Amino acid sequence: MKYNQYAYVKTDYPEQAKELIDINFLPRNYQEWSFSDLLAKLIKTVIVEAKSDEAKTAKLSEFAVSDELTLANFLKQNPTQIGTNQFYNVALQLLGYHVHYDYQLDNPTGFMQKQNLPVVKDINNIEKLVFAFYRLLNTRAKNGQLLIDVMAGKGYFTQFWGQNKFMFFNGKSLPVFDTNKIIREVVYVETDLDTDQDGKSDLIQVTIFRPKESDQGLKVPTLYTASPYFGGIIANEKRNHNVDENLSDSTLWTDPKYQPMPKVDAPKPNGENHISTEEAVHKSSYPLNEYLLARGFSSVFAGGIGTRGSDGLRITGSPEETESAKEVIEWLHGDRVAYTDRSKEHEIKADWCNGNIGMTGRSYLGTLQIAVATTGVKGLKTVVSEAAISSWYDYYREHGLVVAPEDCQGEDLDLLAETCQSNLWDAGQYLKIKPKYEAMQKELLKKEDRVTGQYSDFWDVRNYRNHTDGIKCSWISVHGLNDWNVKPKNVYKIWQKVKHLPIKHHLFLHQGPHYNMNNFASIDFTDLMNLWFVHELLGLENNAYHQWPTVMVQDNLQSDKWHEEDDWSDEIGQTVTYYPTDDHELFKDGNGKEKQKFTDVGGIDFKEANISENEWQYKFISGDEKWAKRSLRYTTDEFIHPVTIVGRPEVKVRVSGSLPKGQLSVALVDLETRRRLTPTPKFLIRGGQELGYRFGTDTLQEFVLDKKTKAKLITKSHMNLQNYQDLRKPSKIEAGQFVDLTFKLQPTYYHLPVGARLCLIIYSTDEGMTKRPLEEETYTIDLANTEIKFSQK
Amino acid sequence: MKYNQYAYVKTDYPEQAKELIDINFLPRNYQEWSFSDLLAKLIKTVIVEAKSDEAKTAKLSEFAVSDELTLANFLKQNPTQIGTNQFYNVALQLLGYHVHYDYQLDNPTGFMQKQNLPVVKDINNIEKLVFAFYRLLNTRAKNGQLLIDVMAGKGYFTQFWGQNKFMFFNGKSLPVFDTNKIIREVVYVETDLDTDQDGKSDLIQVTIFRPKESDQGLKVPTLYTASPYFGGIIANEKRNHNVDENLSDSTLWTDPKYQPMPKVDAPKPNGENHISTEEAVHKSSYPLNEYLLARGFSSVFAGGIGTRGSDGLRITGSPEETESAKEVIEWLHGDRVAYTDRSKEHEIKADWCNGNIGMTGRSYLGTLQIAVATTGVKGLKTVVSEAAISSWYDYYREHGLVVAPEDCQGEDLDLLAETCQSNLWDAGQYLKIKPKYEAMQKELLKKEDRVTGQYSDFWDVRNYRNHTDGIKCSWISVHGLNDWNVKPKNVYKIWQKVKHLPIKHHLFLHQGPHYNMNNFASIDFTDLMNLWFVHELLGLENNAYHQWPTVMVQDNLQSDKWHEEDDWSDEIGQTVTYYPTDDHELFKDGNGKEKQKFTDVGGIDFKEANISENEWQYKFISGDEKWAKRSLRYTTDEFIHPVTIVGRPEVKVRVSGSLPKGQLSVALVDLETRRRLTPTPKFLIRGGQELGYRFGTDTLQEFVLDKKTKAKLITKSHMNLQNYQDLRKPSKIEAGQFVDLTFKLQPTYYHLPVGARLCLIIYSTDEGMTKRPLEEETYTIDLANTEIKFSQK
Repeated sequence: MKYNQYAYVKTDYPEQAKELIDINFLPRNYQEWSFSDLLAKLIKTVIVEAKSDEAKTAKLSEFAVSDELTLANFLKQNPTQIGTNQFYNVALQLLGYHVHYDYQLDNPTGFMQKQNLPVVKDINNIEKLVFAFYRLLNTRAKNGQLLIDVMAGKGYFTQFWGQNKFMFFNGKSLPVFDTNKIIREVVYVETDLDTDQDGKSDLIQVTIFRPKESDQGLKVPTLYTASPYFGGIIANEKRNHNVDENLSDSTLWTDPKYQPMPKVDAPKPNGENHISTEEAVHKSSYPLNEYLLARGFSSVFAGGIGTRGSDGLRITGSPEETESAKEVIEWLHGDRVAYTDRSKEHEIKADWCNGNIGMTGRSYLGTLQIAVATTGVKGLKTVVSEAAISSWYDYYREHGLVVAPEDCQGEDLDLLAETCQSNLWDAGQYLKIKPKYEAMQKELLKKEDRVTGQYSDFWDVRNYRNHTDGIKCSWISVHGLNDWNVKPKNVYKIWQKVKHLPIKHHLFLHQGPHYNMNNFASIDFTDLMNLWFVHELLGLENNAYHQWPTVMVQDNLQSDKWHEEDDWSDEIGQTVTYYPTDDHELFKDGNGKEKQKFTDVGGIDFKEANISENEWQYKFISGDEKWAKRSLRYTTDEFIHPVTIVGRPEVKVRVSGSLPKGQLSVALVDLETRRRLTPTPKFLIRGGQELGYRFGTDTLQEFVLDKKTKAKLITKSHMNLQNYQDLRKPSKIEAGQFVDLTFKLQPTYYHLPVGARLCLIIYSTDEGMTKRPLEEETYTIDLANTEIKFSQK
Repeated sequence: MKYNQYAYVKTDYPEQAKELIDINFLPRNYQEWSFSDLLAKLIKTVIVEAKSDEAKTAKLSEFAVSDELTLANFLKQNPTQIGTNQFYNVALQLLGYHVHYDYQLDNPTGFMQKQNLPVVKDINNIEKLVFAFYRLLNTRAKNGQLLIDVMAGKGYFTQFWGQNKFMFFNGKSLPVFDTNKIIREVVYVETDLDTDQDGKSDLIQVTIFRPKESDQGLKVPTLYTASPYFGGIIANEKRNHNVDENLSDSTLWTDPKYQPMPKVDAPKPNGENHISTEEAVHKSSYPLNEYLLARGFSSVFAGGIGTRGSDGLRITGSPEETESAKEVIEWLHGDRVAYTDRSKEHEIKADWCNGNIGMTGRSYLGTLQIAVATTGVKGLKTVVSEAAISSWYDYYREHGLVVAPEDCQGEDLDLLAETCQSNLWDAGQYLKIKPKYEAMQKELLKKEDRVTGQYSDFWDVRNYRNHTDGIKCSWISVHGLNDWNVKPKNVYKIWQKVKHLPIKHHLFLHQGPHYNMNNFASIDFTDLMNLWFVHELLGLENNAYHQWPTVMVQDNLQSDKWHEEDDWSDEIGQTVTYYPTDDHELFKDGNGKEKQKFTDVGGIDFKEANISENEWQYKFISGDEKWAKRSLRYTTDEFIHPVTIVGRPEVKVRVSGSLPKGQLSVALVDLETRRRLTPTPKFLIRGGQELGYRFGTDTLQEFVLDKKTKAKLITKSHMNLQNYQDLRKPSKIEAGQFVDLTFKLQPTYYHLPVGARLCLIIYSTDEGMTKRPLEEETYTIDLANTEIKFSQK
């Protein structure tokens, strides 16, 4: 497994020596030391857990430089140099590897090559020795962290606690803050919103975690996570909407309109500033924030309107929701008032904040980063938005159909709003807002329009891509290429706009589903984020803008390989087109003439079979006859060259249905029985990463080869036949009427190996995502007018 | 779900008031307060997160006393009493329940009854109010903890940090220790052992977590966990022994002998005492220890011989292993020498320890409690041994057969010894002990004797039940009735001896597999342990010895019901005997005359089917024809009265095999398609229990009804036909020779509901546990001499 490293900043020797001296690692007069003494001294310094020189010396017997010589005995020879193997036999043990079980004493560097760990050779003078240690402290240990962070986890930097300033090492912030004394406080921001319509401003509860040092004159930046789940989650998935129902005539559509809520004018901050009187009971939910908190970045969470501790109604995806998330930044930046408690008696300022705010979080929490970024709010310098929704229509709908996120059949925007309306849990709030809440639930249910599935003004105000021109901050998007919850279209479509803005922008595409990537073995994402936030929020010139390529894509065959790209779009490859044949093949010169049919039975078979949606999908794409008969399939020959499919494949289909309504799905599948990566990363050393000193842990993870599977879904798409003319407006159709559909499939970056076959599946009901009709419909496909086009490289 | 409570100690009102005053909950002059003011004051005090009176007052609006009246408005009326529903509408919210989603404002007490929460009525004077709050603070909150512990988790007791003494509430120790300043140190105990045969004493690394207060004159008790896994685990399961092999003639047995290792005499402690110079890098692995550490109990871990940081060889189950675990207690008690580091230059004493030691831990860690208890070592006051092995033969062997723990096919004592030989990971140790280690591995492999599976002197020295007379400490055993890793015979057989000793003894039998029970919803085990250790190690008379029955058994139909018993043995029920019929029935008057046969095919079918051992077992006991044909089955009618099977069912079988060797298995199965409990408890509120203030968390769990299954294994057993005369000595047998076998099955306490049928299965190869021969053998059962007898109530 390769421990790739992108966040190591190249520095020259004088800078290295200076940094090592600054952290008390290298003695100031090191040039006066003998090679042997300095070698011993530096190794001992890495052994943080031994506190006295005697204890450190005793530890030296536990190391060996070869299969015959312990380190203790080697040092007794007063060496003036150390062989590469000798050095790395010791270094690997310091990095947490186990002799014999991980590496062999006769070939440590062979192991290091396999792990992609840096090796410094010819360590035959003091300068080389110092460089070898500088590189070693900046090498990723077995637990995935840099050795300097492993040392931090053992308390190395407690010697700097209380000195009240940031310290940097190789461009990254060090954990020199007293994590025993983190301030955890709660304040209430007064908004311009009145979503509960009581004539008074909605107060938003904000939870702050910040270094004690920020009370002692040090201004610190803020990582702000707008998390609607922070106050708790109302479990309502048992009340998900019924999806086992027939399609309706989509022309019943009424284009429901967004209805703004009343506004109020919050007062401006006065000169007053009180100390906080409420302590946080909730915790940070994201290890990356904790890691950076130990390194001086305050971490701020707010649920926003409707969540526990806050006023108002949750109105998922609405401009009011964006506003409530944004106004927290206004307070952090000094532009809005907040109070110590809900009585609004005493104002409190974020005078500990340096005014530079970054945002973090995944899923809904990533979504609100996009939302807030489009406002261009002052103080927001960067977003690192993971698995984020860029348009709510693309989360709950597709091409005129109700299409669920994976594992969320029947969920919809009204139910998600309820999930986050956690202020109902407090009886006082409950008595007050229950009627308004119930009215809002009714409105959301009606306007989201599960009947027709059509786009509307209701959804259009929930499309953040309409407002990308407002974005002023730098931008990092992270998304799983196998995310079927927040589908990749969400990141792809906003990327096509963001990449043209005059802001620094990056994209990471990993092989996960709806997942974080901050602790993967194959990439040092956490270290990159340290570099990034130091650059963006502390203004240190640390080469962060040039340290890694614009787009990084994890390979789907070998998880420890990352592709480096300038962009992610159709343009990075060449277009090829495949056509079906009458014999169910798929060729570049396919010339199918037939009209072929399949009969869809909605959810009837599926309910009888009593299997999960995931089981259905695997059997369906693998060609299991029971399920495959409800589809048409066209398959290529085995590929004789590897190919990478990039961007959004496009499928054109001429189709007619036997009813005056219909839903068509198309899927592109990789057919080959072989071992594929695990769907989620394997936990490698559970809890093995210390985020600070006695300050929470994280776990190194990576995708690894799993047992053999027959097929893997590459991408798919769904469309309402009634949207054949206009994806934003339904048309009447007749039974038997042929219509031409053009599907843009979910975007991908899929490495197809030699020997695999590509299969285009045309079907209707997707048991895991679309409605599942109770009636049959026969679909006829005109092969002469059907094709698939994609970009490949 | 019932939140049963056994650890609430009945106290009289003056004591209650005193305790409440002592913890600064009740004002000293409370009798001068108005009812209304005191009510407000006490509620505010529970709201720990609000730090000022203003912030607390603001919070009162978040509560309601009815579906019309908030608490704030209720208090404005200056009430002189509070209705039961009014009080508990507020109290339930304080306990963490959510209005509307958990309880309804018009009937809070109905919900409380369902949860088995105590209700105080007629709160119409100050005394009643004080009592209601005393009971409330001692009521289990939604997260399973007492409300006083929930308050502790929010920092209530930081006001007492640094006062340097224990505080008790309702007989239990309170978390008044400064958990920010826990001392974490490492010392090296010098043993009388020389298992690595270097002529020098083996040093044992000991890791100590203790309150800072124990450096300031406060003597604290110790919870000691002897954990061979503490230094790390060498993953060797891929090298498990082959079990797909034919049985051998067991008379090849040679009765291998235990060979003691050399001893040395460690010096006695001198007067010297140095401070520690090594900090712990490992962490406590058991939340119960952490919970008690916050409450003043030091927590000590040691891996023992062969583990990382220690000298020597791991010799699993041996007297040397027991000795190495025991000698740590000798150091804690002041009777043995330890050093600050491995150079042995500076002695260090456990002068912070009050000399009273209890042991905790599960599995191997529980096993070593039994081992150490039998030595009667001074200072050891009590053990709480969970899922412990009482004889290693009962872990890896049964009745003359190699029988694996669940999910550990092919594992054996030699491999477990390797797993724990983590000192090999340090290159210095590796160079030194590798040859001795390899020799010991060879010896263990040979002497454990996987060829014959017979008992021997090698195993007899690993049977702690031979030494129960040495036990001097009080005793708690905890075991899962579905533990097929450490099978229940281990706890049952030692219980039969321990219960006759003049020591206080308790037994908990839960419905888990190999699992802890410290955070179940249905029983307040953690609170019981607090009471217990306070009584045993701090000498407080808190009624711990009379607070709960001797034996507690969790019901297998309703997990929130616990049966209270005086004992666990055959004697607590009445014996019934069932006999097979020729028609495969099982009746009290069954009169089978036939000789019935089945042919075993070892692992042949199983390997072809490529299913897991668990899948096999479920299909096999459910009667799936493919697997059932390799067995004989005898089934009762449906039970018309519920029955509880207790103790160890006994099966007699007259059997002949078609080869001059053979293995026979018998299983007792509950046949009925119905919903049964989840195999492991469901996580209810992940991380929701604070063990102290910002000091780690645990998760409330409980078994809940799962989807329907067809059958459940009650108990089973396996026997070598060559042990028909003597379970400790093999005999020659001929092919076709009938022998009489008497099986004692694994003990149980199994509640069989009306409608279930009991099924006796006679078979040979158990794919998950026995060897899986490569040859066929036909077994003939003489029904006239076959019966099953068990005790029922």
